[in-house]
Amino acid sequence: MNTAHKRIKAGIVGGTGYTGVELLRLLAMHPNVDLVAITSRTEAGMLVATMFPNLRGHVDLAFQTPDDASLHDCDVVFFATPHGVAMNQARELLDHGVRIVDLAADFRLQDTDVFQQWYKMPHACPDILQQSAYGVPEINRKAIAKAQVVGNPGCYPTTVLLGLAPLYGLGKALVDGSRIIADCKSGVSGAGRTASVGTLFAEASDNFKAYGMPGHRHHPEICEHLSSMAGRPVDLLFVPHLVPMIRGMFSTLYVRIHPDALATDFQALYETHYADEPFVDVMPAGTIPETRSVRGANTLRVAVHRPGNGDQLVIFSVQDNLVKGASGQAVQNMNLMFGLPETAGLTHIALLP
Amino acid sequence: MNTAHKRIKAGIVGGTGYTGVELLRLLAMHPNVDLVAITSRTEAGMLVATMFPNLRGHVDLAFQTPDDASLHDCDVVFFATPHGVAMNQARELLDHGVRIVDLAADFRLQDTDVFQQWYKMPHACPDILQQSAYGVPEINRKAIAKAQVVGNPGCYPTTVLLGLAPLYGLGKALVDGSRIIADCKSGVSGAGRTASVGTLFAEASDNFKAYGMPGHRHHPEICEHLSSMAGRPVDLLFVPHLVPMIRGMFSTLYVRIHPDALATDFQALYETHYADEPFVDVMPAGTIPETRSVRGANTLRVAVHRPGNGDQLVIFSVQDNLVKGASGQAVQNMNLMFGLPETAGLTHIALLP
Amino acid sequence: MNTAHKRIKAGIVGGTGYTGVELLRLLAMHPNVDLVAITSRTEAGMLVATMFPNLRGHVDLAFQTPDDASLHDCDVVFFATPHGVAMNQARELLDHGVRIVDLAADFRLQDTDVFQQWYKMPHACPDILQQSAYGVPEINRKAIAKAQVVGNPGCYPTTVLLGLAPLYGLGKALVDGSRIIADCKSGVSGAGRTASVGTLFAEASDNFKAYGMPGHRHHPEICEHLSSMAGRPVDLLFVPHLVPMIRGMFSTLYVRIHPDALATDFQALYETHYADEPFVDVMPAGTIPETRSVRGANTLRVAVHRPGNGDQLVIFSVQDNLVKGASGQAVQNMNLMFGLPETAGLTHIALLP
Amino acid sequence: MNTAHKRIKAGIVGGTGYTGVELLRLLAMHPNVDLVAITSRTEAGMLVATMFPNLRGHVDLAFQTPDDASLHDCDVVFFATPHGVAMNQARELLDHGVRIVDLAADFRLQDTDVFQQWYKMPHACPDILQQSAYGVPEINRKAIAKAQVVGNPGCYPTTVLLGLAPLYGLGKALVDGSRIIADCKSGVSGAGRTASVGTLFAEASDNFKAYGMPGHRHHPEICEHLSSMAGRPVDLLFVPHLVPMIRGMFSTLYVRIHPDALATDFQALYETHYADEPFVDVMPAGTIPETRSVRGANTLRVAVHRPGNGDQLVIFSVQDNLVKGASGQAVQNMNLMFGLPETAGLTHIALLP
Repeated sequence: MNTAHKRIKAGIVGGTGYTGVELLRLLAMHPNVDLVAITSRTEAGMLVATMFPNLRGHVDLAFQTPDDASLHDCDVVFFATPHGVAMNQARELLDHGVRIVDLAADFRLQDTDVFQQWYKMPHACPDILQQSAYGVPEINRKAIAKAQVVGNPGCYPTTVLLGLAPLYGLGKALVDGSRIIADCKSGVSGAGRTASVGTLFAEASDNFKAYGMPGHRHHPEICEHLSSMAGRPVDLLFVPHLVPMIRGMFSTLYVRIHPDALATDFQALYETHYADEPFVDVMPAGTIPETRSVRGANTLRVAVHRPGNGDQLVIFSVQDNLVKGASGQAVQNMNLMFGLPETAGLTHIALLP
Repeated sequence: MNTAHKRIKAGIVGGTGYTGVELLRLLAMHPNVDLVAITSRTEAGMLVATMFPNLRGHVDLAFQTPDDASLHDCDVVFFATPHGVAMNQARELLDHGVRIVDLAADFRLQDTDVFQQWYKMPHACPDILQQSAYGVPEINRKAIAKAQVVGNPGCYPTTVLLGLAPLYGLGKALVDGSRIIADCKSGVSGAGRTASVGTLFAEASDNFKAYGMPGHRHHPEICEHLSSMAGRPVDLLFVPHLVPMIRGMFSTLYVRIHPDALATDFQALYETHYADEPFVDVMPAGTIPETRSVRGANTLRVAVHRPGNGDQLVIFSVQDNLVKGASGQAVQNMNLMFGLPETAGLTHIALLP
Repeated sequence: MNTAHKRIKAGIVGGTGYTGVELLRLLAMHPNVDLVAITSRTEAGMLVATMFPNLRGHVDLAFQTPDDASLHDCDVVFFATPHGVAMNQARELLDHGVRIVDLAADFRLQDTDVFQQWYKMPHACPDILQQSAYGVPEINRKAIAKAQVVGNPGCYPTTVLLGLAPLYGLGKALVDGSRIIADCKSGVSGAGRTASVGTLFAEASDNFKAYGMPGHRHHPEICEHLSSMAGRPVDLLFVPHLVPMIRGMFSTLYVRIHPDALATDFQALYETHYADEPFVDVMPAGTIPETRSVRGANTLRVAVHRPGNGDQLVIFSVQDNLVKGASGQAVQNMNLMFGLPETAGLTHIALLP
Repeated sequence: MNTAHKRIKAGIVGGTGYTGVELLRLLAMHPNVDLVAITSRTEAGMLVATMFPNLRGHVDLAFQTPDDASLHDCDVVFFATPHGVAMNQARELLDHGVRIVDLAADFRLQDTDVFQQWYKMPHACPDILQQSAYGVPEINRKAIAKAQVVGNPGCYPTTVLLGLAPLYGLGKALVDGSRIIADCKSGVSGAGRTASVGTLFAEASDNFKAYGMPGHRHHPEICEHLSSMAGRPVDLLFVPHLVPMIRGMFSTLYVRIHPDALATDFQALYETHYADEPFVDVMPAGTIPETRSVRGANTLRVAVHRPGNGDQLVIFSVQDNLVKGASGQAVQNMNLMFGLPETAGLTHIALLP
């Protein structure tokens, strides 16, 4: 099928935050997409490019109220909203044949009890949730391609799941049952574009701290999908930290090798597992990825280290939290849902320095 | 007079912002000060050191409501509040013999019409204002020493006034009447500790911009006091910029030399003018100060350049906006008001790197 | 002419610095370019993507020695080298029909005495220099399109010249003869990728300073081309400053309006002047551009302010110093030299945040 | 003993790096110290305050050659030099009765084979090494007080050892024998003031990465002293990371609780252990320290978390790598060696923001 001239009409609900502006940047450069609507109750009437001047000359849209926006005419609608919005609007859009990619958490957790526990609201449409696909293409590609609704994953889960996936891919035990530690570090844009004291420049710059103890919402998300890959419950300790940088996420993963798997060549395992993946890059043995190598790109880079050739793996997994960790992966999911080449509109090279 | 054992009871109104925490840092290390009260309506009951953990082990106070705090028993009260608070509480404190240093703008402008125009409120106590002193000690030392109320200057005005003061100090025309340009750059802490999108880390980091056009409140303040020094109206263009750093202010001042003053040795003029000043450092000829050289210190460094030995002066004036530009200068004013050595509690060396 | 399938073979001499990696990023995404060679004596044999991991998966080239690289077979060679390299290799390349874009200073100044004074070497090929074109397309488009050699401008000159060009474009005096002040601010990448103490993170971060007094090499470059535009000598004071950000340049330009031109609508003048320019964006009246709005993009944004509607203009001119200020403009020049659409490969949207 | 008027003559060998300037800052403000000499072969003759302008007005010394400096007359000499310098000069200084604090690694490891393996040089004075004390006062106070030579610890070891010390302090097993993971993060000043590409602002800013795999020199140092505390070999995995901030170190320590010790109140254990320590601050239960809370201060803050009240401890240990992690601890050691109050000259409050 020649998809070069296929056109997708896309709308965005929300869009005044960082995943919103990043979606706009990517969709405006996408060869197959026509941006037709973006909604914001509070900013209705303002040109998008007034709020985000990088879009001047590239995006002519103005924010509209949800009522004024013709979302029903879209082929796909992205929700770049707080948690709880997409699940309340999903049914109506689906009834009009609109497909949905939710960048919030409404379709990330199949266990609605866990959802309610962490997000403090009952799930509004468990039936739609059940039909939805969790949007990590490298793990769930077939389901995504057929889905009407995709739950775009959290940024931390993407690095952890893709950092560990090859260890669970062979149907045999490569990893022992002991606790996995995910010591994760995120740039400040991960906290969103909401005014708050804690993420002011004068608070977050020249500083480093952990946060999210005793529990972070991405923990149950990682566990559900990691256990699903492993075929058994996985014991995970997850500690997020805040890095004084705008974009970037770096996860250091500590895993013990199963005694029966000590002969495994883990570098080869990872390279083979991801050989055909356009957006996962296994680093050469002995090297370490850095976050700036993926700044603005939809690439996740992973490196696997085994100190002293012992029973310990140290895996480094990096991404741009706003691209592969959010809006880029959302576009990758859209490409899959509409039969476009998975890389369409996503081949930009990272900005370094 | 031996002042080594003199004790000053100090209170702070407000104090949840950056000038507040900096005042607390400086006063807690001051050899003559007992911190007795700090007020905050919104945070009453919270330990100060919970909000500002650098103070753990150094400051045991908790925030109190204004009603609970015994400000009347203080020798001096600092207002680290929004504009308009100090002028409404001044009379009552003065009646109890409490002296006042206001870090906001209530006592910076003698012209109450100009005050009302820029701060959008009538002045509440013009009589007290008239008796107050403008708190740049290097310009106004005698008046400060006798004042009951000191209006601590704005951060930008401090760099501009001290950067230009030597040019107006000799009673003759060193500078021609043409427009002075003050191209000023401030770190983000100057915007305060209030949650706002524009000063989020992800907005202000790795970015540079001007702001405050067409007009900034510090413009009339600079003009009033510069004209007072010059003995005539001064034509000043002031353009502030925002620098992605926490602390620091750098003003580049462009001034034309009067034709009759071309023979002046401006380096010598500056060195002589500030020879006895403990907190103004004239840099060696040909060098340029940098903001980090004063990070955390009450020092203002100034350098005077004359490109090609022509008729143009380029003056660089730097300070820590929270110290010499705010709380440090407030302590310097307090020292003067109470007959302490002017340098008491203010001799810390800047933190570099 | 349909240029969609036109192919340009491009080589890079040097290329281990920031303008080099940025050229590689842009050329690797350019629809008409085949990257065929990149040279580095010191790094010969190393994969380019090893040094610059953002290029992994996009650029397969390794650095070669100049002897091994087949630069003669290129259509165009970019010099991303220190000053003095291009002028010594230009003749040989020209003899092989290779066109040249020099990102260093060898072809920026027509006055070879001035070149020798500032760059401390005699010019090696004044005849070629005379035939070369100065590479600001918005000022010199026709000459660039016909040139065999283009001298890509300095980063500061690009912001100043494009910030002032509309004022000199009408053949009449809009600006009086008094001194123009260019208070310019650059991100640290402008200092290059050479190890030096002054640009270490721990020195340049959380700091601000001026530098380059009493004179900077970009001063004569600006003056030569500004005077050429003005048709008379222009009196310019240029003071560069260093900003703790990676990319970005912000020039604040202070100009006096000619008494006869006070009735001019300068906003309209700028909008008209740049109406057809794809890479110069005149901001709406009253707004101020910020550097992040052009991060990674070949756009220069300019805003013109007239405080109090008086006789003073304050012009803000911003760019990414590595794109419009260096490698992007070099590609724009290449496009012109080879009859490609001027925007080919240069339509990426800036990365914000 | 009244030590208020005791004077210590101090010299510094090296001192052009970050630990050097930080020593100068602290010693210049120390009430009992006279700075009498600082050496640098390369910078002899230059005023210290020219290189480090924060010291203008506080330190009048110029760098001297080692021959010109009267180090023999000092009471104490600090080595802020590369590894290998102090051990070659120690004997001569000791012969003159000079005490030594080495901020490099010469006196950190008692095992000279391990020293040679990691530092690629044989130890020059094993006998002096054997008499020296490892300079973490909170662990080794008595030995330091009697020592002629103190090996000031590495920055990472300080956070790890003090973060874990309470677990080994009771003579019984609180921690099981499984691997301890130290995921550590350091500001860029830890890499020193040597020009190198990797720590340029444009490389290290807005970026995050791990480094030092497969092995870092601080690993054997931590292991030697941790095993000494534990009374048995300790299995430690240590992974350092680089944070885009100037100062600050944050260590996240993962430790398993011994099955017999599950009833322990670890918060109380830590609070009790450090109750009398002036420079170790145990954070309240449930809170997390941040690096800026100790910027410029000699304080280490530690927090102990036990997720879900299970068998896992997560310990956060933060310091300013240049103060408690280097020069501040060196001064603390000096205070002990000379019978001064341990806090003399070290009570400055951290700079926040």
